[in-house]
Amino acid sequence: MLDKLDLTKKADEGSYEKTLESYKERLNILQRTLRDQQIPVIILIEGWNAAGITMTIHEIVQSLDPRGYALHSIEKPTYEERARPFLWRFWLRTPPRGRIALFARSWYSRAISEEMQKHTWEKSLKGRANQINNFERQLADDNTVILKFFLHITKEEQKQRLEERERNPLTAWLVTPSIWNIHRHYDDSLPIIDQFIQKTDTEYAPWTLVEATDRRYAILKVYSSIVKTLEKKLEAEKDGKAKKGKPKEIVKPKKNPVKRHSSPEKVFTKDELQQTLSSLQIEMLELHYLLFKRKIPLMIAYEGWDAAGKGGNITRVAKFMNPLGYYVVPVAAPTEHEKQYHYLRRFIKHFPTRGDIAIFDRSWYGRVLVERVEEYCSETDWQRAYGEINEMEEDFIYSSGGGIVKFWLEISKEEQLKRFQQRAGDPLKIYKITEEDWRNREKWDLYEAAVDEMLARTSTDFAPWTVIESNDKWFARVKALKTVIAAAQKLL
Amino acid sequence: MLDKLDLTKKADEGSYEKTLESYKERLNILQRTLRDQQIPVIILIEGWNAAGITMTIHEIVQSLDPRGYALHSIEKPTYEERARPFLWRFWLRTPPRGRIALFARSWYSRAISEEMQKHTWEKSLKGRANQINNFERQLADDNTVILKFFLHITKEEQKQRLEERERNPLTAWLVTPSIWNIHRHYDDSLPIIDQFIQKTDTEYAPWTLVEATDRRYAILKVYSSIVKTLEKKLEAEKDGKAKKGKPKEIVKPKKNPVKRHSSPEKVFTKDELQQTLSSLQIEMLELHYLLFKRKIPLMIAYEGWDAAGKGGNITRVAKFMNPLGYYVVPVAAPTEHEKQYHYLRRFIKHFPTRGDIAIFDRSWYGRVLVERVEEYCSETDWQRAYGEINEMEEDFIYSSGGGIVKFWLEISKEEQLKRFQQRAGDPLKIYKITEEDWRNREKWDLYEAAVDEMLARTSTDFAPWTVIESNDKWFARVKALKTVIAAAQKLL
Repeated sequence: MLDKLDLTKKADEGSYEKTLESYKERLNILQRTLRDQQIPVIILIEGWNAAGITMTIHEIVQSLDPRGYALHSIEKPTYEERARPFLWRFWLRTPPRGRIALFARSWYSRAISEEMQKHTWEKSLKGRANQINNFERQLADDNTVILKFFLHITKEEQKQRLEERERNPLTAWLVTPSIWNIHRHYDDSLPIIDQFIQKTDTEYAPWTLVEATDRRYAILKVYSSIVKTLEKKLEAEKDGKAKKGKPKEIVKPKKNPVKRHSSPEKVFTKDELQQTLSSLQIEMLELHYLLFKRKIPLMIAYEGWDAAGKGGNITRVAKFMNPLGYYVVPVAAPTEHEKQYHYLRRFIKHFPTRGDIAIFDRSWYGRVLVERVEEYCSETDWQRAYGEINEMEEDFIYSSGGGIVKFWLEISKEEQLKRFQQRAGDPLKIYKITEEDWRNREKWDLYEAAVDEMLARTSTDFAPWTVIESNDKWFARVKALKTVIAAAQKLL
Repeated sequence: MLDKLDLTKKADEGSYEKTLESYKERLNILQRTLRDQQIPVIILIEGWNAAGITMTIHEIVQSLDPRGYALHSIEKPTYEERARPFLWRFWLRTPPRGRIALFARSWYSRAISEEMQKHTWEKSLKGRANQINNFERQLADDNTVILKFFLHITKEEQKQRLEERERNPLTAWLVTPSIWNIHRHYDDSLPIIDQFIQKTDTEYAPWTLVEATDRRYAILKVYSSIVKTLEKKLEAEKDGKAKKGKPKEIVKPKKNPVKRHSSPEKVFTKDELQQTLSSLQIEMLELHYLLFKRKIPLMIAYEGWDAAGKGGNITRVAKFMNPLGYYVVPVAAPTEHEKQYHYLRRFIKHFPTRGDIAIFDRSWYGRVLVERVEEYCSETDWQRAYGEINEMEEDFIYSSGGGIVKFWLEISKEEQLKRFQQRAGDPLKIYKITEEDWRNREKWDLYEAAVDEMLARTSTDFAPWTVIESNDKWFARVKALKTVIAAAQKLL
C-alpha cells in the first residue's frame, strides 16, 4: 500500500499557517465536546525514523488542553512489561472516557520490531495482527475512536534527514548506530509494515497513510483527518447513529457443557479429606517452586454463589503456596475511576507476571453475572462479553505461556439459606452477611440462567470451567487444590 | 546492637502451636478493627538471607483477610525506579487507610546494599538514615503504624542453612553464587546494618530485633510484637491519646522573604515581549535537549490566583519544549482513592524521571493554600506541611540531581475582577468561570495570608519561589520562561 503514495505532495505555502490555525481551533473545541460526551480517543502516530512523528505530535498538543490528554511515547518494553502479554502495557495506557491518548509510536512499532527478528514473519505476523485487531475492536466496541497514522518517506529522504540531524550538534547524539542500522534495513521492513497496515486496516480502526516528504503537508493531512473523523463521530452520536459493538462469537465453546452439581457423587469423611488436603498442599508447594523457577504464570478465578465458601477455599488452596509468589485480587464493584475504562482493563492490570499465581476472588465474569442480572450494563454489552473474555483468556495463555483455572463454587439453594442463617446468628460472622446477599438470593433463578450461559459459552479448551461441588466445604477445598495441581502439572 | 542478642533463645515446644493459633486469631480481629478505624499499618521484615523472612511472612498472611493487605517483595529497583528518588517506589507502596502493607525486605535492604558498595559509608549512611527517618516520620504523623523487624542469625548458622537449601533439589537453584558472595561479606555488612538500626530506631518507627536461630521463637516474637503494638495503638485511639504529628521546622527559609507584586517595575510593549518570548523559546528547546541528554529532571510548579493565567503561561512556556520530554500534571481536588493515602503521595507519583520536565498545574502547595483556607485539613496538618514539603523538595533535588522551579502568579484583586467579568461575558470562555471562583474571591484576605506564609516558609535556597507579576500576561510569560531557562542553565 505504501508504494502507492505520491511522496511529492506539498502543502500550499501561502495558506498553511491559516489552515493550521483553523484546525487547531476546531480540535480545541472538539476536545471539550468529546470530554462532555465522555468519548475516549486514541490517536497513534507511526512512521519511519525522522519522518516527523515528534513534530506532528508537537503540533497536535498545541491545540489540546493538558488536562484532557496523555502522551505516551512507546519504546522498548521494560523488564516488567516483557513478563506480561504483548498488549498488557497498551491496555493500561488506554484513555479514560472523554480523554485523548496520543501515542508516539505504539503497539505497531513494537510488533514490527519483533517480526523483524524472525525469518518466518509471514506466518507469525498474522497472529499478531489478529490479536491487535481484537484489541482495537474491543476498544471501538466500547465507543473509543481510534485514529492511526503512518508517516511515509523514502529511504533516500530518511538518509538525508538523519545526516542533517548529525550535522546539528543539538541533535547529533540522537542519531545512534542503532538508528543507522534500522535505516539500512529499510527495504526489509517495508513489506512487514505493509502487511501490518493491510491486515489491521479495519472499519473500526482505519489507517491514514501520510505522505511525509513535505512536513507541512503531513501535518495538515493528520490534522484534517483527526478533525474530520472526530466531527463525524460527534455527528453520529447526535443522530443516535453511533453503532454499538455487536456480539461476536469467536472461540467455539466445548461440545459438552459443564454441569452444575452442589454435592459430590462420592462421600468422604472429614478426616479423609483433611488428610488428602495436607498431602496435596505439599505437592502444591513443590509445583509452585517449579512454576516460579520456569517463570510460568497462573491465574485462578473464583466465582460462585454467595456463601459458597470462596474465601475459605482460597485460603486453604493458597496456604502452601510461597507467599512471595502468589497474590489474591479481591474484586469488588468497579470504582468511579475504573468505570472510566473498558471493563476488562482493571483485571488485565492484575495479570500475573513470571511464575506468579494470581488468585481472583471474583473476576471478569462479573460482566455476565451480576452486571447482567442487575442490568448494570446493556444486553449488547454482556452478550458481547463472552467473546471478549474468551479472546482475553486465549491471549493471556498464548502470550505468556501460562494457564487459567476457573472455579464455579456451586451450592444448593437450601445450603445457602442454612449458611445465611448461621452467619446471621453468629456475632463473629454477622459482618459477612448483608442485605445485598438476601436481595441477590431472591434473584436466584436469574443468576442461575446467567451462570449456565456463562459455563456454556466460556468453557473453552484452553480455559475450561471447573464446577466445585461446595455443599461440603472440605470436599470443595480438596477438589479445588487437585484441579490447580493438575493444571500446574500440565503447564510444566 | 545485634551482638547483644542471645541467639540461643528457643520457643517452648509444647505450647507453640496453641500460642501461635491465639496470636493468629487476635491479628485477624485486629485487622478488621484497624480497617474500621482507617488506620494504615506497615510491617517490614528485614534480616539475613535464610534467616526466615519468607516463612515469617507466610505465617503472618495466614491470619489476614486478603482484601486488607498487600505484600511487597522488595528486590533490586527496575530501570524506571532507578531513575527516581530512592524512596519513590516505597512511597507508591505505602498502604491506604485501614490496610496493611507487608514488606519482605524494604528500603533498608536497598540502603544497606547501596552502602556496601561504598568505602566511605559511615558518612553517606547518615544522610540516607536521615532521609528514611523523615519518610517514616511523615507517615507516622499521618497515623500510620510502622513495625520493623530484623531477623538475626550468626554467620555459621546462615552457612548451614544455605547448605541445607543446596541439598534440597527444590530450593537448590535459589542459592545463587551472589547469595554466597553476600554470605562471605557477612562481617563487613554487620556494622552497616547495626548503624542503620541504631540511627533509625525512632519513637515513631522502632525496631524489634529478633533472635532467629529457632524459627518458632522468631515467629512468636514477631507475632507477639505485632499484636501488642496494634492493640496498644487501638487503645490509644480509643482514649483519644493518639498523638497527632506536630509541626517541625527543618529547613531554614531564606532570610529575605519573597514579596508579591502584581505589576512589573518596568513596562514593556507587547511587541517587545513577544519578540523576547520567541528568542527565549528557541533557547528553551536547546536547553531541553541538553537536560534530556544529561538525564536531569526538572519540576515546575504553578500556583497563583484564579484567573492569573496559569494555563496560558504553561502553554507558552511548554511551546518550545520537546513534547516527548515534558508533561503537564493537572492537579484537582484529590479523588476518594487519593484521599486514602498521605497527601504527598499523589504528587510524588508524578515526579519526573531522567531528563523529563514535569509541569504541575497547581501542586502540593494546595495543602497550605486551599486545604488550609477551606479547612479541609486540621491546623496541625497544614502547619506540619511546610516542613514536610521542604523535606520532599530537598529529597527530590538531592536524590535525582534535578531542580524545582516554583511560580506564584500574582494579580491584583481588581485585575481578577476584570478577568472574571470578561470570562462571564464571553460565550467561548464562560466555561472557565465557576461559582467556586467567586466564592474563593470572597476569601481573598484569608488566601493572601496563606500565600504570604507559604512564600516565607517554603522559599528555600534549593527551591526558591519566583513571584510572577501577572497583571500583564505577556510579561508573565516572558518572566516565567526566563526563570525556567536560568534554572536549567544552573543545572547543566
